[in-house]
Amino acid sequence: MKKSYLLSPGPTPVPERVLLAMAQPVIHHRTPQFSKIFAEAAEKLKTLFHTKNDIIILSSSGTGAMESAVANCFAKGEKVLVVNAGKFGERWGKIAEAFDLKVTWMNITWGECANPADVKAALDADPEIKCVLIQATESSTTVKHPIKEIAEITKSRDVLFIVDGITGVGVFDIPMDDWGVDILICGSQKAMMLPPGLAFIALNDRAWARADKVKNTNFYFNLKRERKNLKDKTTAFTPAVSLIYGLREALLMMEEETYPAVFARHVALGKAVRAGTSALGLKPVTKHLSEAMTGVFLPEAVNGKKFVKVLRDDFGVTFAGGQDSWEGKIIRIAHLGYFGEFDMVIAMSSIEMALDKFGHPVKFGAGVGAAQEILRDRFEVK
Amino acid sequence: MKKSYLLSPGPTPVPERVLLAMAQPVIHHRTPQFSKIFAEAAEKLKTLFHTKNDIIILSSSGTGAMESAVANCFAKGEKVLVVNAGKFGERWGKIAEAFDLKVTWMNITWGECANPADVKAALDADPEIKCVLIQATESSTTVKHPIKEIAEITKSRDVLFIVDGITGVGVFDIPMDDWGVDILICGSQKAMMLPPGLAFIALNDRAWARADKVKNTNFYFNLKRERKNLKDKTTAFTPAVSLIYGLREALLMMEEETYPAVFARHVALGKAVRAGTSALGLKPVTKHLSEAMTGVFLPEAVNGKKFVKVLRDDFGVTFAGGQDSWEGKIIRIAHLGYFGEFDMVIAMSSIEMALDKFGHPVKFGAGVGAAQEILRDRFEVK
Repeated sequence: MKKSYLLSPGPTPVPERVLLAMAQPVIHHRTPQFSKIFAEAAEKLKTLFHTKNDIIILSSSGTGAMESAVANCFAKGEKVLVVNAGKFGERWGKIAEAFDLKVTWMNITWGECANPADVKAALDADPEIKCVLIQATESSTTVKHPIKEIAEITKSRDVLFIVDGITGVGVFDIPMDDWGVDILICGSQKAMMLPPGLAFIALNDRAWARADKVKNTNFYFNLKRERKNLKDKTTAFTPAVSLIYGLREALLMMEEETYPAVFARHVALGKAVRAGTSALGLKPVTKHLSEAMTGVFLPEAVNGKKFVKVLRDDFGVTFAGGQDSWEGKIIRIAHLGYFGEFDMVIAMSSIEMALDKFGHPVKFGAGVGAAQEILRDRFEVK
Repeated sequence: MKKSYLLSPGPTPVPERVLLAMAQPVIHHRTPQFSKIFAEAAEKLKTLFHTKNDIIILSSSGTGAMESAVANCFAKGEKVLVVNAGKFGERWGKIAEAFDLKVTWMNITWGECANPADVKAALDADPEIKCVLIQATESSTTVKHPIKEIAEITKSRDVLFIVDGITGVGVFDIPMDDWGVDILICGSQKAMMLPPGLAFIALNDRAWARADKVKNTNFYFNLKRERKNLKDKTTAFTPAVSLIYGLREALLMMEEETYPAVFARHVALGKAVRAGTSALGLKPVTKHLSEAMTGVFLPEAVNGKKFVKVLRDDFGVTFAGGQDSWEGKIIRIAHLGYFGEFDMVIAMSSIEMALDKFGHPVKFGAGVGAAQEILRDRFEVK
């Protein structure tokens, strides 16, 4: 027997309560019984998104919701600004190009975040740009983008601000209405503590006004049609019923913990990981680390691809490695979703022992101990 | 307490074994551990589809796979023939129109199936038609279309034959390679005994040759990209991991029963329902009943919408009613997937008692008894 631990930034571990909720018998989706569950989940999502707007639930991965944003709001040939600071920024551009939009690429060095002044300058330079596409967290580099600050720029212009919050919503607060985010997207397999298979998207009035003018050239991801169906507490096509059971349960768990406590937990766990990795001499890959996860460079002598594989197969602990130019060079330690203090202890401990196996000098307990210095404050002993 | 019974043609009941398989902890999708499960499921699907072609697994409802077929194989302006014999035939046409194809509508009276001679005549009359789009079962009317016969016509021409087998694959045999079906589609929530959320699609060489020439104008449903990822035993985007656990388990169950036995069970249960409803004086809505389900007209004095609602809310038995012009007039009794003999007894018994409540004269046990005359042969007592 080898116990397994999932410490990757998506999918993340699913709580037992949610797994059991999903194991309930399937009911028909066109019934008041299902509509009740569905509507409850959709309503709870509004609290999480801090919005008066409807949340549309799609049965797809988060990428489906990204496609739906692009396909519903823009006509062929329209110009969009893509903040490309990693794999997922790049994906925005590829989606926009698939729908024949004109993409202005704002290419950012991996590890850097978007600079609001640069976004402003790009919009000033080209008034034809209709939209800014960005991530809340660029997962490939563990970078957090300054969403609030960019929203300040877009909201006073005729420019939509579309945020892929797949690694963001539920990780930290993104009050879309207050900040002026026009479209906010989320997926099920990150902070939402669910298996992959659902995506969520909210549009504000500005975004709907645009969407209402655009004729879709795709079929499945039609937000106008979903909005109509949502009024009847249902979806256009058969939804992933079991995942919706799970969604309601996961949202209930977050409400019980309270969202401020959820966000504070992510912050604290992140701090612990940073203290731990720093004590081990591992440098963060960015100054702009997201509360979702921590990326650090591995020692040069360590083959990072092998390192992640050994951790997964020999220690039973699954982290994410690096992608593209960072492949084999970094490790990404997740602390979003169903993670507690001792998961970070496991993270540090397993990394210490793996470094040792790779011949890197390690003082056992140094990383764990530094993490504990932070984690101790999470426990109130009466 | 009221026990609930799902007797609708999709979603259908999910076996306990499958529910439990789905309740397993989520693992990362880019690992050999997941790839093993994924590849096993994909391989087993090939047996079910009777094909040497790869089966692509999409995280979406079946409609997503329908979109993928249209979007990957045809360019704007190309002509397709849509067999429109109900709601799902109509959907083919709507998808094709969303992608700016030219649709030749073959409109068929509800309750009738496609006539192969008419398909041949339509293709003869217009050599520009590149494809025939049809359902294996048109669920809205419970009609089975003559797939093998139409394939005979298309396979000798430069015309693709695309079959929505969402209510077909796993219900009865559709050997796609033998028959010459070019694209076959299936969804998870019907005969596959899974919750909604997955779709399956296989393309033969002819279809791939077409797909390779077409540049996608959508992003998420890109079969060329999925084919490439399938070689690495993975998907382009994060797949619905839990549903894939369930998929493998459900396929294993079908293999244990053996496919011929699964198909024979569907046939027998269907016969029992037809004998039962006939004994109650309920006329079938079509001469071309699918093995998936049986649609019958309700007595004129009975409000069918209310009837289905009373069965669901007061008896705890969920059937499907009618759609569009048949709304309130018919009831559809499912017998595909995880259904056994006594589910049909429940179906007949609940319909008898509900008819009685609606003031329709019923001899209790007449429908049940007629069904039993068929079902008895399913039990071999040694």
